[in-house]
Amino acid sequence: MQSIINYIQSHKEDARKELFDYLRIPSISADSQYHLQCDLAATFLADKLKRIGMENVHLVTGYGRPNVVADWLHAPGKPTVLIYGHYDVQPPDPLNEWVSPPFEPTVRDDRVYARGADDNKGQHWPWVRAIEAWLATKKKLPVNIKFVVEGEEECGGKAIHDCMMKKEFIDAWKADAVAISDSAWVTHELPTVDVGMRGLAYFELEVKGAKYDLHSGEHGNAAPNPIMILAQTFTKIQNEQGRIQIPGFYDDVLEAGAEERAMMRQLRRDDAGFMEEIGVKDTVGDKNYSYVERVWLRPSFEVHGIVGGYMQPGAKTVIPAAATAKISFRLVPNQDPNKVRETFKSYLKTIMPNSVTWKLRELGEGGHPLVVSANDPFLKALQPVYQQVFGKTPVYKRMGGSIPVATLFVRAWKVPILFMGLGWHDDQIHSPNEHLPLQQFYGGMELAARALEAWGDVKK
Amino acid sequence: MQSIINYIQSHKEDARKELFDYLRIPSISADSQYHLQCDLAATFLADKLKRIGMENVHLVTGYGRPNVVADWLHAPGKPTVLIYGHYDVQPPDPLNEWVSPPFEPTVRDDRVYARGADDNKGQHWPWVRAIEAWLATKKKLPVNIKFVVEGEEECGGKAIHDCMMKKEFIDAWKADAVAISDSAWVTHELPTVDVGMRGLAYFELEVKGAKYDLHSGEHGNAAPNPIMILAQTFTKIQNEQGRIQIPGFYDDVLEAGAEERAMMRQLRRDDAGFMEEIGVKDTVGDKNYSYVERVWLRPSFEVHGIVGGYMQPGAKTVIPAAATAKISFRLVPNQDPNKVRETFKSYLKTIMPNSVTWKLRELGEGGHPLVVSANDPFLKALQPVYQQVFGKTPVYKRMGGSIPVATLFVRAWKVPILFMGLGWHDDQIHSPNEHLPLQQFYGGMELAARALEAWGDVKK
Repeated sequence: MQSIINYIQSHKEDARKELFDYLRIPSISADSQYHLQCDLAATFLADKLKRIGMENVHLVTGYGRPNVVADWLHAPGKPTVLIYGHYDVQPPDPLNEWVSPPFEPTVRDDRVYARGADDNKGQHWPWVRAIEAWLATKKKLPVNIKFVVEGEEECGGKAIHDCMMKKEFIDAWKADAVAISDSAWVTHELPTVDVGMRGLAYFELEVKGAKYDLHSGEHGNAAPNPIMILAQTFTKIQNEQGRIQIPGFYDDVLEAGAEERAMMRQLRRDDAGFMEEIGVKDTVGDKNYSYVERVWLRPSFEVHGIVGGYMQPGAKTVIPAAATAKISFRLVPNQDPNKVRETFKSYLKTIMPNSVTWKLRELGEGGHPLVVSANDPFLKALQPVYQQVFGKTPVYKRMGGSIPVATLFVRAWKVPILFMGLGWHDDQIHSPNEHLPLQQFYGGMELAARALEAWGDVKK
Repeated sequence: MQSIINYIQSHKEDARKELFDYLRIPSISADSQYHLQCDLAATFLADKLKRIGMENVHLVTGYGRPNVVADWLHAPGKPTVLIYGHYDVQPPDPLNEWVSPPFEPTVRDDRVYARGADDNKGQHWPWVRAIEAWLATKKKLPVNIKFVVEGEEECGGKAIHDCMMKKEFIDAWKADAVAISDSAWVTHELPTVDVGMRGLAYFELEVKGAKYDLHSGEHGNAAPNPIMILAQTFTKIQNEQGRIQIPGFYDDVLEAGAEERAMMRQLRRDDAGFMEEIGVKDTVGDKNYSYVERVWLRPSFEVHGIVGGYMQPGAKTVIPAAATAKISFRLVPNQDPNKVRETFKSYLKTIMPNSVTWKLRELGEGGHPLVVSANDPFLKALQPVYQQVFGKTPVYKRMGGSIPVATLFVRAWKVPILFMGLGWHDDQIHSPNEHLPLQQFYGGMELAARALEAWGDVKK
């Protein structure tokens, strides 16, 4: 192993320069004017993968921005690990807030400033360099490796989604575990592995009252008001203690273990810190759980907006004929978005009054929650690796949000997802002056090199 | 009296032609291109009032469209009645839906089709002709009369409002009762007098949560959601039985008498009829009261719209930093909008959670409700008059909406308002093909002539 680490150490400057070249490509997937630049970034990555000795390197085209795919499968009997990342980046606007131009990578205070430095070029490049170090030094890898790096993560992920709906790609990309470095440490000092994420079920609930808008003077107090009935519905879905009232809603919730909860409690982010950060004097939800527990471990209900009624300046005394609410549930393991949708529908049938008609439409596909068991061998294998590289074992946290591609992998193969984020929580991703600390980039290369070795010992 | 009725009968055709001339003036107050036409309508009316013998005829200018003012005050010891109306009309759009042009009055099926035929030229002209008949025949009136006819009723009523804020006009226009023919019979067969109307207190309630919009994945279940908190607030303001929960809210409510309620129950408009008309299978509110009782006699709470959150097509998982609801209370006698505002504010202080801040802004001035006692001598005097003219005594109903000018009169002088509507409920006011049945116009002249006589016997 030492020879590999030596290779990484002695090629640090080379790796940084290469990353800078990659960062100079404005691969903004959301803007069609930059689609050629996306293709260029894909080619840049594919070319590099070929040069370091990865095989079967190709671009999957025809689904949108190409997916960069490669493999190295010469470790018989050893597990196969899929390394996922994305080469596309967020638009850099507002440009005038950048201290240095977004596509001219610049080092200040030992941090690389550039669009994509953290999210995600600077986080998957260490994996490329770790494999380069292995193959340059040992001419082989300790595990079988596949790369799938997409180019539409920042604009909906349609290309990789459409591929993962096909048996062809599900078979070709199959692995025993997936490594994703696309998240952040909870503090600068605490190496962090996300061991779960919430799922999502998003709906539009449309309520219709009268045939036409009514005047509240002529009908107020007798005609149904769809906004009021939505309000009543919300309070029947979730009470003020944050408890969701749909019968059986919590039945499938896998409670987090005492150990995991204890670990989360130790994190910097206490409730007071959160309240200060977002600027509120109190929180909502089930006070038996801390802020992060409520966000990471517990399912939730939110109203995102109500369309209908009078929304212009001034006063108008209308009772709208209809109103539509945008609402969602965040789900936790082992809740199933399909089951939640059906239970929710049944519940609405029992609570909606006869004075209105209603329709429930699901937006997007149900996102499944996921969790990685603390006993998962791929996860356990990382403990000594983090200790060696960063001087401490990682804390485990979960994500409150959802990463759809991770859900796709889990649904296809039922494998652990190893969210080995290398960024810091304050790297300003999606904002001006995005950056990545150089020490995280360099540390990431060693982490990746040692993780590959550790996973080589995991029994298939 | 018979000579007066004879005069009216023998000049019917003349009255109709005169009304047609008045209707030909497109006095659209909402459109500044027609302001000269508004002035023309005001002059047309003032000129007529002078010719029939009204005195002190003048236009009050400088406040917007002129108020036409006149009086005849030579009945010492007799009451003074103010006759109110408005010479301005709604815009006629959409023009292509009119069978005959809106400003070329046309008779079809014994109805006058024209913009303003019902609302309001055709309803106040009978009063002008009744006074003409009295003065032409008897050279005197049985009561003292004042006319105040405004020209901004259809665009907010600012001119008359601003006048009524001044002692000068409050003193000059003072009367013992006000007659307003600007409403409709509840059916074609039932002469109707409105004996009350609801008041209005309209607010914007703004709720602020976090400093900035949050991602529901990162914060959902812990950070306050202003829309959800508004929903909870609505259900605390009014329960599902339609009962408003603000302590003391009903304390000042003057319950309608058994007689008035019984009369309302007899009206055509039963709950089933309303449900069919607006297209719903059930109503909301306090089922101890019928539909019309809930709308006319009971205070109400409505939500008119919520601004904030995500209101575009598609899914966005935002927890908005703030949301603002447009809400109102309709008030009934003897509720005071100022007291309601203060009580509501105090109640909000007790129910709003610490997780948010909030602000309550009143829109417009509080509109006071009003009611005319069934024992009011001016109202009682009308019973035999309606019997003589229309063959039956009037039914009493109330208005669910608010007529601000009536509130101004009541606040200034504490006098009864006699809502002696001459229109039918289906005259399509504010819509294409507005019309007024000729029999209502002719009957209105006799009603007005006999009402003046009856009021002459009311003790001051």
